[in-house]
Amino acid sequence: MLSPKYKEMLGMKSVIREMSAKAHKIGEEIGFENVFDYSLGNPSVPAPEKVNDVIKKILDNSEPLALHGYSEGHGILSVREKIAGYLKETYGLPYTYNHVFMASGAAGALAHAFRAVVCPGEEIITFAPFFPEYRPYVETTGAALKVIPADTTSFQINFEAFEKELNEKTAAILINTPNNPSGIVYSTETIQKLADILKKAQEKYGHDIYIISDEPYREIVFDGVDAPCVSKFYDNTIMCYSYSKSLSFPGERIGYVAVNPACKDAETIIHMCVQISRGIGHNCPASLIQLTVAELLGETSDLKVYETNANILYEELTRLGFSIVKPGGTFYMFPKAPIEDANEFCNTALEKYNLVLVPGDSFGCPGFFRISYCVETEKVKRSIAAFEKLAAEYGLI
Amino acid sequence: MLSPKYKEMLGMKSVIREMSAKAHKIGEEIGFENVFDYSLGNPSVPAPEKVNDVIKKILDNSEPLALHGYSEGHGILSVREKIAGYLKETYGLPYTYNHVFMASGAAGALAHAFRAVVCPGEEIITFAPFFPEYRPYVETTGAALKVIPADTTSFQINFEAFEKELNEKTAAILINTPNNPSGIVYSTETIQKLADILKKAQEKYGHDIYIISDEPYREIVFDGVDAPCVSKFYDNTIMCYSYSKSLSFPGERIGYVAVNPACKDAETIIHMCVQISRGIGHNCPASLIQLTVAELLGETSDLKVYETNANILYEELTRLGFSIVKPGGTFYMFPKAPIEDANEFCNTALEKYNLVLVPGDSFGCPGFFRISYCVETEKVKRSIAAFEKLAAEYGLI
Repeated sequence: MLSPKYKEMLGMKSVIREMSAKAHKIGEEIGFENVFDYSLGNPSVPAPEKVNDVIKKILDNSEPLALHGYSEGHGILSVREKIAGYLKETYGLPYTYNHVFMASGAAGALAHAFRAVVCPGEEIITFAPFFPEYRPYVETTGAALKVIPADTTSFQINFEAFEKELNEKTAAILINTPNNPSGIVYSTETIQKLADILKKAQEKYGHDIYIISDEPYREIVFDGVDAPCVSKFYDNTIMCYSYSKSLSFPGERIGYVAVNPACKDAETIIHMCVQISRGIGHNCPASLIQLTVAELLGETSDLKVYETNANILYEELTRLGFSIVKPGGTFYMFPKAPIEDANEFCNTALEKYNLVLVPGDSFGCPGFFRISYCVETEKVKRSIAAFEKLAAEYGLI
Repeated sequence: MLSPKYKEMLGMKSVIREMSAKAHKIGEEIGFENVFDYSLGNPSVPAPEKVNDVIKKILDNSEPLALHGYSEGHGILSVREKIAGYLKETYGLPYTYNHVFMASGAAGALAHAFRAVVCPGEEIITFAPFFPEYRPYVETTGAALKVIPADTTSFQINFEAFEKELNEKTAAILINTPNNPSGIVYSTETIQKLADILKKAQEKYGHDIYIISDEPYREIVFDGVDAPCVSKFYDNTIMCYSYSKSLSFPGERIGYVAVNPACKDAETIIHMCVQISRGIGHNCPASLIQLTVAELLGETSDLKVYETNANILYEELTRLGFSIVKPGGTFYMFPKAPIEDANEFCNTALEKYNLVLVPGDSFGCPGFFRISYCVETEKVKRSIAAFEKLAAEYGLI
């Protein structure tokens, strides 16, 4: 029988995709240069130039049977060793290959982390605003996703609401810093407080509670912003990483799970990831791509453009009367809509001013909207006039 | 809480991996050239020479943002179109891109097919001997795998046992032809009979029953062997393909799901695969690898060596008194052990004669053993003396 679960999901439209599709339609009518498409979180700067050379060198210097052959279920050992070495050097924690599992991007990494440490019937807590895909990611495992309402003044954690939601069924806390959609980076104070609360909760409930830390934007942090490494604050931290944003590599589906070496079950969790792969048909990212990223550790695309765009938009939109918590990284910001219904606001912005914004409802934060400013800076500048008209329409100026 | 399901799986050793590990240990002691390792199904011929050129050409001629960017959830459209065109031309069925979903090898393809058309509590029937990974693949979905005992005279389908097992909970039949571990190719007569029985069963039970056809060995068929295309016989066929064996590409994790265009829900199933991906964190094979295989349709590694090896082993082992159903393809054969306990037999073969064979128990066929002859022909020839001593030990000659 066709699975009712997945058939039902066919009807659940992604509002991000819907806005993007509308933008595309308008672009076909009036020219794409006239549409200010802030809908998708797709890198706008190319992969580092040396990527092609790295791939060619691997092809030229490898024996093809070994290169294209099966890798170990955990990922290629030399790749895991290099990544562990990089993490150790960068964060000062004693990672070895035993703590690293290669995954198909952050989605793959999260799929493994959830299945390893959360059982059906247990709960995962996350904090609004949050990446809407977390819902299908979690709910297809049989666990429940509990969302803590946002602290809209700072987009740090709303601890009061969080402590009320914590209970004996809480198996993991899912965080995403730097954050999609707010662009906010959790401060040292926030992470420390989260860790302290969880340590007490572990004692109170008598079982481990994990932080699953989704970190694809780790390298996109703006000047002067404090961006602490979550794993340094809490032993039971599972870091889920993707090279999609840092290397502008989203189509190559490559990332990893790295369990804090201080976690007592770290190695077991990594071995369990291999078993999870057998069940979900994942079985490692492509060998060539694994070997490629291992030669590019510490390299990034030219990410500075995102900060340039952020500064222009923050300054101009603030001047126009929008209320925005200033982003500390990523390529997102999350202003307050000038009316209660952000959907209506985003529709107006699109239909009247060709501004493609995404309403915050599906991010767990109605009344706000997301701007994905991974677009050319020239276009960001040109869009300000459109924002100005929009601000005027809503009486902000 | 650490998932008891996946934690328990840590203890389930793969007998194939165990034999391979033993072989490795002996190889370290006596030299790998002296160990006849017939344990793993890992291609022994390299990928076609032009693969590297194809990849380099893609790198040189693509705009990096597009090349490494997100592909559609279904896979890259141009890739799906090319594969559909190839299938249409090869099998004469009207495939379009709407019938093709790109997956991470056969394991990924099967993971999607199972979740699309089988619900928890329903049953999937397969036929012994079968690939042991089918068990974790199926059981982690919440469905049950029912195994039909082998017809050991031919390794075609034991229809009498099959018809007894068919019931209203049967959602899919999982077949693998050419077959791992028997090397047997199902005949036209077998496929036709299977299709006829299923058509009647669909009417009787009032619901669709799918054939999920696992076809990674489709191109490895020996001279003169009839290897019918399953989809031509039965509308509700979901073909799961991998380039692992045909292109010696197992580490690149690339394959597809192709639903028979005659299946009334074909397009829905392909769309459902995208939703399944969201849940299991799969989200497409690597873009570069997708584009690569699309330029290599119809190409294969030099697969003839497998037939050469098959002929040598079949002739010599038959001469030595082993009872073998002659393989029609793949790089496996599945002889009868000369004693009831194939585990004991395989241990003796290893310990006394450095022959690494895999007992048939985990393939659902006790008393038989698998030979994976994806090894150098020179070594196959040298192994015959060892088989001769083994045959003598068990009184076959």
